[in-house]
Amino acid sequence: MSLPLSPTERTTVRRGHARAADDREVLHALLDDALVAHLGVVVGGDGDGDGAPYPVVLPVAFAVDLAGPDDGGTLYVHGSVAARWLGRSGGATVCVTLTELDGLVAARSAFHHSMNYRSAVVIGAARVVVDAGEKQHALDLTVDHMVPGRAATLRPSTRKELAATAVLAVPLAEASVKVRAEGPVDDAEDVAAGTWGGVVPLRRVAGAPEHGADSHDRVPEDVRRRAVALGAPADH
Amino acid sequence: MSLPLSPTERTTVRRGHARAADDREVLHALLDDALVAHLGVVVGGDGDGDGAPYPVVLPVAFAVDLAGPDDGGTLYVHGSVAARWLGRSGGATVCVTLTELDGLVAARSAFHHSMNYRSAVVIGAARVVVDAGEKQHALDLTVDHMVPGRAATLRPSTRKELAATAVLAVPLAEASVKVRAEGPVDDAEDVAAGTWGGVVPLRRVAGAPEHGADSHDRVPEDVRRRAVALGAPADH
Repeated sequence: MSLPLSPTERTTVRRGHARAADDREVLHALLDDALVAHLGVVVGGDGDGDGAPYPVVLPVAFAVDLAGPDDGGTLYVHGSVAARWLGRSGGATVCVTLTELDGLVAARSAFHHSMNYRSAVVIGAARVVVDAGEKQHALDLTVDHMVPGRAATLRPSTRKELAATAVLAVPLAEASVKVRAEGPVDDAEDVAAGTWGGVVPLRRVAGAPEHGADSHDRVPEDVRRRAVALGAPADH
Repeated sequence: MSLPLSPTERTTVRRGHARAADDREVLHALLDDALVAHLGVVVGGDGDGDGAPYPVVLPVAFAVDLAGPDDGGTLYVHGSVAARWLGRSGGATVCVTLTELDGLVAARSAFHHSMNYRSAVVIGAARVVVDAGEKQHALDLTVDHMVPGRAATLRPSTRKELAATAVLAVPLAEASVKVRAEGPVDDAEDVAAGTWGGVVPLRRVAGAPEHGADSHDRVPEDVRRRAVALGAPADH
């Protein structure tokens, strides 16, 4: 069985390769589509009493500023200042992986079973954002990544809220993208044997927005538009 | 802004906590639902010329055997024997994270924006599966995780295919689950100000199975059943 979602490691993540225009285009489209990223950090091993280094992978919301100050543009993730992993990650190399699953590939043999997907692996030195303006900008981008246009409809963050939030910036320069988007690729004998092979396509869809407690008003236009763009019926 | 998908680190991943029956139930349900996992490994730092250790996070297919030989049950991931990261991971601590996104939580402030999701973080020492029987079993489980029942309809893997495939087993004993499944939790002033808050629900749905090249037959019942279970129309 081949690995449905193939391994990438830093040694094969070539900057020159990732900078090819078409790969950058796929990366940027995936950064638009994905809603959750998986952030990998190395914990321990620094004589801080945690023993040998081990990886921790966490799902995080994210935002992107292609005109951001980091090489290749900036990917932002954030968390509470109380989260130990965030403070530890300043200056450290982190990995941010995005994956959108597009289908199950049912091949004629176990070995050739696979998935259709788009993924990106970004590896870079994390920078803790100190500047208050950049921090607010990163948080606005994160809200707008979830619901485009919404940040402008909200009150500004308070100083207390900004102080409680840590933001990490990761350069997008070193990135590797991988896309599989086809039917099963089988051995000729298995095709000849007549076994069925094909794809179960998968996609993410939104339902109609649900009112929170004490929200009796009309769903705002930006939220409605976002839900419809994600596949919700247009008549809610 | 609070971290929508909150950090978990090994120091807070308590075996006793994760072993609470309700958490185990949530973990097992998520292991059933999720189709892709994110595997984190630490690369470098062992004097192998790669410099300081850094994390690499890769999307992988997976399978679970709750009656498997490892503590808490076994999670299997696999890849090509040519993949350097797999060989390196034998005996090393790895992290496998599963995340299913259930909604965008549009709060009344940027700070309280969040997501509804279910996630699990599994940390454990990876074991390279050597036994041919266990390897075949793991690959059958992986096929059946994608399309339940399909492994029994396929020819057995060849010795060459098994030799080309490396399988890692990760114990499920040390796992942390996290679920958010509610509307926005806002400050009273923001609710009083009348800003709309709510949730855009999200789910994954399948389309009708697509025939691969040279598959003109009826879609087999297991594939049809899987697609319908994932939301495809029943009449294809």
